[in-house]
Amino acid sequence: MIYLDNAATTKINGEVNKFMKVYAEENFFNPSGLYEPSLKVYKDIQNAKEKLLNLLNARNSKLVFTASATEANNMALRSLCPKRKKILVSMGEHACIYQTAKHLKDDGQEVDFIELNEDGTINLADLENKLTENTGFVSVIHVSNETGAVNDLKAIGKLIKQKCPTAIFHSDGVQAFCKIDVDLNDLGVDAYTISSHKIHGPRGAGALIYKSNLNPKPLIFGGGQEYGLRSGTENTPAILGFAMAAEIMHKSFTHSYEQVSFLKQTLLSKIEELHPIINSSAKTCSPYILSLSFEGVKGEVLVHMLEQDGIYVSTGSSCNSKHTGNRIMLAMNKTKQQEAGNIRISFCEDNTMEEIDIFAKALIKYVNEIRKLDIWKK
Amino acid sequence: MIYLDNAATTKINGEVNKFMKVYAEENFFNPSGLYEPSLKVYKDIQNAKEKLLNLLNARNSKLVFTASATEANNMALRSLCPKRKKILVSMGEHACIYQTAKHLKDDGQEVDFIELNEDGTINLADLENKLTENTGFVSVIHVSNETGAVNDLKAIGKLIKQKCPTAIFHSDGVQAFCKIDVDLNDLGVDAYTISSHKIHGPRGAGALIYKSNLNPKPLIFGGGQEYGLRSGTENTPAILGFAMAAEIMHKSFTHSYEQVSFLKQTLLSKIEELHPIINSSAKTCSPYILSLSFEGVKGEVLVHMLEQDGIYVSTGSSCNSKHTGNRIMLAMNKTKQQEAGNIRISFCEDNTMEEIDIFAKALIKYVNEIRKLDIWKK
Repeated sequence: MIYLDNAATTKINGEVNKFMKVYAEENFFNPSGLYEPSLKVYKDIQNAKEKLLNLLNARNSKLVFTASATEANNMALRSLCPKRKKILVSMGEHACIYQTAKHLKDDGQEVDFIELNEDGTINLADLENKLTENTGFVSVIHVSNETGAVNDLKAIGKLIKQKCPTAIFHSDGVQAFCKIDVDLNDLGVDAYTISSHKIHGPRGAGALIYKSNLNPKPLIFGGGQEYGLRSGTENTPAILGFAMAAEIMHKSFTHSYEQVSFLKQTLLSKIEELHPIINSSAKTCSPYILSLSFEGVKGEVLVHMLEQDGIYVSTGSSCNSKHTGNRIMLAMNKTKQQEAGNIRISFCEDNTMEEIDIFAKALIKYVNEIRKLDIWKK
Repeated sequence: MIYLDNAATTKINGEVNKFMKVYAEENFFNPSGLYEPSLKVYKDIQNAKEKLLNLLNARNSKLVFTASATEANNMALRSLCPKRKKILVSMGEHACIYQTAKHLKDDGQEVDFIELNEDGTINLADLENKLTENTGFVSVIHVSNETGAVNDLKAIGKLIKQKCPTAIFHSDGVQAFCKIDVDLNDLGVDAYTISSHKIHGPRGAGALIYKSNLNPKPLIFGGGQEYGLRSGTENTPAILGFAMAAEIMHKSFTHSYEQVSFLKQTLLSKIEELHPIINSSAKTCSPYILSLSFEGVKGEVLVHMLEQDGIYVSTGSSCNSKHTGNRIMLAMNKTKQQEAGNIRISFCEDNTMEEIDIFAKALIKYVNEIRKLDIWKK
């Protein structure tokens, strides 16, 4: 198997899974219990928060654990914008921001969408235009899950604070955390979302980080866990596994970044003869994601052909796989053909040069085969 | 260690954890992926649904997986009641129903609370009075997490359908599922909530079961997973672990029920000399939960004394541990002393007679010691 869909989900780190087993089978106590083993588990959760905040250089911020980044993004969008203020989100957001924004709009909230540049980053001029006095909340994805395009959060934050000093600036950092350099103190965002299962951690854990002066509100009410912000028995194994996975990723950050960059470049040079259209064309782009379109090729057909060889890539975000059309490609002003021809290759540090070699050969073979069928002319 | 706080959380079944490892490390694919291994995982999730629906005798109902029963209960309460209709919940509900109801009331929704009998079941006469034409939704806990009192859902359902045929009847079945006989077809509820980590399954999975004609709405928006009702990458290991844990529990259902009933009775007979006040006094009561008060004894003090011997019980629901006072004991018209003296002992089928013997001796020793201190007279 050659797994190149790491933006959809990653394989859990074996060490992390082993560590979680101890918390599922031995330290399984409810963190709200009154006895010592419960208090210990509760403290372990607080330590996991501190670890993650440290890794993000956000020691003075707060962190609330959720069951997923989707939940954390929903919480940010639905509770950080002051009432009757406008929400601005980019057209390049992950479905969990985009669909929530659409839902809020249907519900009567003022919502506007920031346009994208052709390279997948947000259009700063459009943001500037749409930042009005009434803007209460802006959310811009850090690294696009479709193209890997890195938005310049620092510049965006400055612009927001210049034009709307009171607006809250949130970023979905799911594809950024542990993959590109993320220093929340330096970036100047007010709130940030991270996910566990994209960094070889377990499913079932995400987090919303927010500046201490903010007051997010719960989506889920009950026993008052997580400062009353997120009720339900804490998923200790997933939370601690998340923090451990992040620490492991951070330790080999530079090496992984270089390895993955090298794999991406090598792949591109090996498939030059196919003249791919590189959708991951932002000046600053994550090496972990490569979005390509091949003229005359339907992405879905290519995905299924590669699958026969045990090679797994996607046609874009899994969270859009059930929808028709790739709205982000269309927002980037790609042609219908480029949009339908899109495949997303997403690496991890465990991918090898040998895998890239096999993958490049398979790509060349199948793209040429599909092109011979000439489906677009039918 | 003698663990008698199984209503707070249970130790995961080792076989379940082993099974989950395979799904975390090998079949880790995103269920929304377009390739075969993703489709396989997606089908596994659908099979898990069918298994759970079968175990509940609810084949024609639908099931949506959430990250917790708390989330499922929030979803039921916040989306199944038609707009401008009244919500009725009992005063004996778990915090995730009770606090959500209070939140909805603060938000302007009409909400009323059904009184409890002294034995912890709901007061049917009070329910009948409060069922008005405008009632849209009723939620009554199946087995009280505080006392084990079993509410007669069949009778409650009949009453509701007689007085308000259009009202939707939901029950929180967290402490009932796999512990007492639950046949949704026979009980006649419209919606039902179950949890994984109370039945030796993993954290991170709960479910809302609902009749096919109902249309719950999402709390969490995004990629449209779970028929658009619960976005976020499916937590495959937790979901499949949940279904497996339920199957295992069901296989030994009768044996476990008898074992646990025997432990409960034996304990009561061994501590007769302490003259405990039995709060678990409902005619129909789950054998898995025993709530007691000892005159002249503060529950919290007793919990900490028992803890010294490695015996873990609670003073009631973990989800209330951060609050002052036990609202359910008070709703049962218990005296302040009974309320403060309450301890909850919750069994599992793995508890042994030897453990009960040690526990009974420790209880006798510590209750007598505390009584000698005579704290209530100070």
